[in-house]
Amino acid sequence: MAKIALAIHGGAGTILRSAMTPELESEYRGGLEAGLKAGWDVLSKGGSALDAVEAAVVSLEDFPLFNAGRGSVFTHEGKNEMDAAIMDGSSNNAGAVACVRNVKNPIKLARLVMERTQHVSLAGDGADMFAEEIGVELADNAYFYTEHRWKQLEEAIAAGKVQLDHSAYSSETEPPMNATSSKPVGTVGAVACDSSGHLAAATSTGGMTNKRFGRVGDTGIIGAGTYANDACAVSCTGHGEYFMRNLTAYDVAARMNYKGLGLEDAARETIDHLAKVGGEGGLIAVDTNGNVVLPFNSDGMYRGFVSAEGQFQLYIYH
Amino acid sequence: MAKIALAIHGGAGTILRSAMTPELESEYRGGLEAGLKAGWDVLSKGGSALDAVEAAVVSLEDFPLFNAGRGSVFTHEGKNEMDAAIMDGSSNNAGAVACVRNVKNPIKLARLVMERTQHVSLAGDGADMFAEEIGVELADNAYFYTEHRWKQLEEAIAAGKVQLDHSAYSSETEPPMNATSSKPVGTVGAVACDSSGHLAAATSTGGMTNKRFGRVGDTGIIGAGTYANDACAVSCTGHGEYFMRNLTAYDVAARMNYKGLGLEDAARETIDHLAKVGGEGGLIAVDTNGNVVLPFNSDGMYRGFVSAEGQFQLYIYH
Repeated sequence: MAKIALAIHGGAGTILRSAMTPELESEYRGGLEAGLKAGWDVLSKGGSALDAVEAAVVSLEDFPLFNAGRGSVFTHEGKNEMDAAIMDGSSNNAGAVACVRNVKNPIKLARLVMERTQHVSLAGDGADMFAEEIGVELADNAYFYTEHRWKQLEEAIAAGKVQLDHSAYSSETEPPMNATSSKPVGTVGAVACDSSGHLAAATSTGGMTNKRFGRVGDTGIIGAGTYANDACAVSCTGHGEYFMRNLTAYDVAARMNYKGLGLEDAARETIDHLAKVGGEGGLIAVDTNGNVVLPFNSDGMYRGFVSAEGQFQLYIYH
Repeated sequence: MAKIALAIHGGAGTILRSAMTPELESEYRGGLEAGLKAGWDVLSKGGSALDAVEAAVVSLEDFPLFNAGRGSVFTHEGKNEMDAAIMDGSSNNAGAVACVRNVKNPIKLARLVMERTQHVSLAGDGADMFAEEIGVELADNAYFYTEHRWKQLEEAIAAGKVQLDHSAYSSETEPPMNATSSKPVGTVGAVACDSSGHLAAATSTGGMTNKRFGRVGDTGIIGAGTYANDACAVSCTGHGEYFMRNLTAYDVAARMNYKGLGLEDAARETIDHLAKVGGEGGLIAVDTNGNVVLPFNSDGMYRGFVSAEGQFQLYIYH
């Protein structure tokens, strides 16, 4: 029987210790802990890695401070457009949705795309139509309204800027809003190894504040932000364009399969390469031996994993 | 000075010799020849691989029989929604568009996304908005109207089916139209090596006849249908879902970089793996020595390359 393992993240980026209050940090830790608990409850009862990463990401989507699901940021038009992807390493099957609205848990819809269609990815109105047809739980605009996100949008519009996910708590700003600006980093994700040694990965995001121009990020793209096979499962967070050009999630698996590296070396090489080309962010990954790695090259990454002794480990900074 | 090289494709799939007339075959060969000429004119004058693949794909998009640009198939609503991606192997930069309408040459818009924005991919209304703003050439619905495509749509709607790109010329049909059906194969693409040894890849598609549900294919996804770095450039065509789950375009590069394989062995392993998991289609690829490979596992693939002696070689079947 394989050693079960679970890791989660709530986004990487500029997370300034100086801008964090003890109350806020405690809230974030609570959100991470709930996500770990949701996934671990599945795994420790013999459930599948796929069910575990879905349960963990649903919990993280429901937590209003992370940029996914309920806590999703607002686009320029005051809407919430969310992306999510899930991949089952044992079957090589995958599902993703992009720019969905009013779906309470986009990761559930991604899984339904995987299991109920022959497609990998559905986007926009078509994805929303599928959501209604398949009967996944919807939520009205009020559900996705969180005051701090709306304030972020108002500030971003007033300043003509796109905001980092965690920028409400930092002095970071972005270049003027046009098609050439963005540095979105808000994401949640989970990776797991179950007692059968099967792996799975899931990632979900609410995109970027004041988003326009239909920008497609890495989260909903298999191989960029999310990947799982029979060697590893990977979920990424960071400056998505770099993850898309470098196929960051799949690259960890490729370095393991084709170079014969272990998980830790493969993930480190991938993040080193990301840094070399100027990309900022991190990833969480797990292998079939239950090893977990959580490398990142940004200031911080909301993250957690369950130790070999079954203890929940939560971290924000380096 | 590197040996310049160019290869193109016009889609892979069920291309039945029995359903092909000499006139039609001659038309297809003319379309391929024009594409090769457009790209080769650039390369042989010392132009860049990036300009060459763009020129070749523009020509293939303008040719009404291939499913891209002008010849794009109709969605269920009688619209044309096109995807395209381009990647510059020397800079690792990439651009893509998804579900664009009324853009005469989607590959040009993909290049503008690469060069004029900090994004990799724009989709839907946002991509159309960017097209207008950046001033790329638009075309009205009449430009994209081709009688055989409209007839394909009418037949598909009447039969409640999704059609293969080349199914007007075959007896192939698809399962009943719903979210679980599709086997789209129509694509055009080009890969090139220029005299500086720089590589580039470009791919463009009109999607699938009678498409609904916002299905996202591999063509507009970097690493799935299109990829280039300093080892190889790859453009894919076939059953997109398999290319997305297996990161087929990037996989060739990964096998070269991480396993130390040459282009031919890497591409063959990638296509063998695709076949093993049930994926149908092919790819064209080029390396920095000007080697060209065009492997596929379907019945046919419209394809062409320029031989070492500078002769245009055109093929449809095995």
